Formats: sequence, C-alpha cells, structure tokens
Amino acid sequence: MLLTNTMEKLILVSNDDGIDAPGIRFLISFLQPLGKVVVVAPSTGMSGMGHAVTISLPLRFKKLPTENGVERYSTSGTPADCIKLAMNQILDRKPDLIVSGINHGSNHSINILYSGTMAAAIEGAMQNIPSIGFSMFNYDTNLDFSFAEKSVQEICKATMEKGLPDGTCLNVNFPDNTYPKGIKVCRQSIGYWNEGFEKRIDVHEKPYYWLKGDFIILDKDENTDDFALRNGFISVVPVTIDLTAHKHIETIKQQLNSL
Amino acid sequence: MLLTNTMEKLILVSNDDGIDAPGIRFLISFLQPLGKVVVVAPSTGMSGMGHAVTISLPLRFKKLPTENGVERYSTSGTPADCIKLAMNQILDRKPDLIVSGINHGSNHSINILYSGTMAAAIEGAMQNIPSIGFSMFNYDTNLDFSFAEKSVQEICKATMEKGLPDGTCLNVNFPDNTYPKGIKVCRQSIGYWNEGFEKRIDVHEKPYYWLKGDFIILDKDENTDDFALRNGFISVVPVTIDLTAHKHIETIKQQLNSL
Repeated sequence: MLLTNTMEKLILVSNDDGIDAPGIRFLISFLQPLGKVVVVAPSTGMSGMGHAVTISLPLRFKKLPTENGVERYSTSGTPADCIKLAMNQILDRKPDLIVSGINHGSNHSINILYSGTMAAAIEGAMQNIPSIGFSMFNYDTNLDFSFAEKSVQEICKATMEKGLPDGTCLNVNFPDNTYPKGIKVCRQSIGYWNEGFEKRIDVHEKPYYWLKGDFIILDKDENTDDFALRNGFISVVPVTIDLTAHKHIETIKQQLNSL
Repeated sequence: MLLTNTMEKLILVSNDDGIDAPGIRFLISFLQPLGKVVVVAPSTGMSGMGHAVTISLPLRFKKLPTENGVERYSTSGTPADCIKLAMNQILDRKPDLIVSGINHGSNHSINILYSGTMAAAIEGAMQNIPSIGFSMFNYDTNLDFSFAEKSVQEICKATMEKGLPDGTCLNVNFPDNTYPKGIKVCRQSIGYWNEGFEKRIDVHEKPYYWLKGDFIILDKDENTDDFALRNGFISVVPVTIDLTAHKHIETIKQQLNSL
C-alpha cells in the first residue's frame, strides 16, 4: 500500500487507452502542479469497454518505475477495475480527485455509455469522490494536447475545492481545435450510431464482421455538448449514476396498472 | 438474413449469461406465445460486461439448430454487440420488442451500470425499440423460473402494445420468492458495493486478486426497486440513456463560471 502525505492533495489518474497512451501522459503532467498524482491504468487499450468489470478472472497489477516523481501502476483490468484496485489495494486513503483520460476521441452524447474513460469517472461517482473524465474531439494520433493544460487544471482545481454532488461526476470534452472559446456546462445531446458491419472472409474461408458506423446528432438545441463542441467550446456535462427516467415513471405506471 | 413474416410480432432475445443459460431458455418459452422469437446471444457468459462493445476485434456469429421452432444465433460478442449484429446482419426488419435475460442475480440499484443484460436493453433504447431487461434476485443455480411466466408475458405484451418513450427501456427485477405480490413501478435505489479483493498467490509465486464485496443499500425510501424487491414485489424502473444530472447543471455552472 502506498503511503501518502495527508497534507497534500491526492489525485488518482486512470484512462481507457492504456497507461502508455499520449493522452494520459499529457494529463499527468497537467495535474502534477495540483497535488500528488498516482496513476493506476490498464496495461493495454480498453476502448469501448463501457463499465465492464472483471468478475470471472482474477486481476493482476504491477508497479512500474516512477516517472518524474509519479507512482504508476499498470493493471490487467478495465478502467472500472483500475479504480476499484486503486481504492482497495494501492492507495492508503480516498483520493481528493479522480481524473480519467485524456481520451483520444470524444465521449459526448450517448458515447458516454460505451466509454471506459467515463466508466472510471462514474466508478468514482459511485464512491462519492469528485471525478472527471476528459476526452478530445480529435482523432489525430500525433496531437499535441498542450493547449488543454490550463482548462484541465482550472476545472480540476475548482472541482477539488468545491466538490461535486453525491453520485455525480463530470464528462468534459474538448473541441477539435487548439483554442477553445470557453466552457459550456450543458446536457448530453441526443444522437445515435448509424451502424453497419463489414463482412470479411478469413484465411479458413469463414466470415467475420467488423463494427463500423457514423455518429448522427439529431439534437438542434443549443444547450448540448454537441453544440458546444461544434462551436469551439469545451463541453462539461454533469453526469448522474441514477439512470431512472423520472419523468416517465407515471406513464409506465399507467401502462402497467392493470397487471 | 432471416426472412420474417411481417404479420407476426418479432421479438429479439438476448442475455449476458450466454445462450445456454437456464434464464434465457425459460425466457424464450415464455415469449413464444407472443410472437416470433429470434435469439441472438453470447456463446459464453458475459456477466459484468456493462455496455462493452467489441471494437478492436472482429465478431463472429453462427446459426445454431432451431429449437422448438426458435431461430438461435450465438455470437463471440458482448450483449450490446449481439443487439447490433441482430439489427444489422441477422434480422430483416426492426423487432417489435427486445427482451434480455432472465439474468441470474439482480440488476437493481447501481448494478444496472455493470450489467450486460441491461446493456442489451439500453442498446435497444438507443435505437428507440421497446426493450426490457429481466433479472432475478436469486442465486440458486437450480432455480425454476416458471413462476415468472405470467408476469413476463403481461409486461412484454403491454410494452409491445403501448411502446415506450424514445430513449427509454425497462429494468425489471423479480424478488427472491416464487409468488410476487405484484408490480411496483419505481426509481433506482441508492446503494454501493463495499468491496475488497482477495489476494492469492499463484503457482509461480505471483499475486493475483479476486474482486468480492457486499452490496449495501442506503436508501430508506419506499419508492425504490430495492424496497419493492425486499417486500416481495416485482420492480420496474424506466431507464433513460440520458445520463445528464439535470438538477445539478446550475450548481456546476456556478462552480465553473469564473473559468
């Protein structure tokens, strides 16, 4: 178990692109001025893992060499597993903040449901620890994330100071340009994947299928993450772990009331 | 592609315990009187997979022998993958209903976020198809699910007739007894996992860790799934794919307004 100095803010960092991804390396460097950073992240990429947890297999983790004073642990698990392992086996106390990312590719709209990056933040929200997932609406593998430094630091600092409501975390996405115009706190936009599979034939003459698709936004409202991103702003969506469709409870009661 | 009779209701069935699990076998038999049932389910157990989708690997599926007139396809994918494959590669039209389960073990409270069973239903909600996930608050591997037949049929029939609001599905859990007292439409209860890992040493003297824990409900409210289940009722929670914490948008705006 890692002994931490309780006088210092403790920041747990994870991601879903794997511990060697550029996004997490930038994130670590951005967060170092804010407190003691400890990294617990998957050893390999875990994109699209959603909130998967490892139940049927045991988990392993190992301590990697300290890098610029930062303790780093790689695990065989998913992003959600990483948070559980960190809280139970690695850290000696609750972190002051959990930060996940920076994901290469956006996690706005319904993509939050598929996102391992956001699962790590949601796992933090389940434990009532202020948690933030950062993603980048950009797919350039050589991207320099430096332009995000100041905003990441400001959002993290404000969140550590003021906390978040219980069961809530933040889904923060950066627009696809290097100079965000500002921050918009907004709601998740309505969208869907127009999907298909590409059928291919393997060397044994058997078919296999690759998922592919285009993401379509139907939402014209200006108070959404999609609108913010497409207009050059950072989107911040407060996310709840309560999936109840509260506004439809009465409708469903009426639909089922004769049963 | 499977040619279906458009005069008949088309019901797509999946699960996360795998195509040979007892729960899905009972579910199929319950649904046959309501329409044409087509099963597309993982070839093996996928518990705890959450809303994982397979992006970095190709998928495969195969048609199994028809059983009691039911077409069955097993896939190498997760429950969410199964719904995507069914919609894109197997069915010739949108199903009238998607039903997932019956899961062995409950998916009430925050467990919905870890549940592959519910991911299949949520995937249906993303495509605006009426979708229901059924789970059983019981862990007896020899359980006879027959007592659930009438309620499963009634809930499915009402939902096919009346539909569900866009982006909404139902999370239905059966209590741990054979005679439910009735149905309660309610909200997701607030709870958490008090978790730990059991550390063991493998034959090569290396440590590995098994996740284990107890589920704790903090919620005393009577309008919750946990209250319904513990008092012998079937819980029905309408579930949304919008994870925005709408009631906290203003708070977060204030917290970040100086940035």
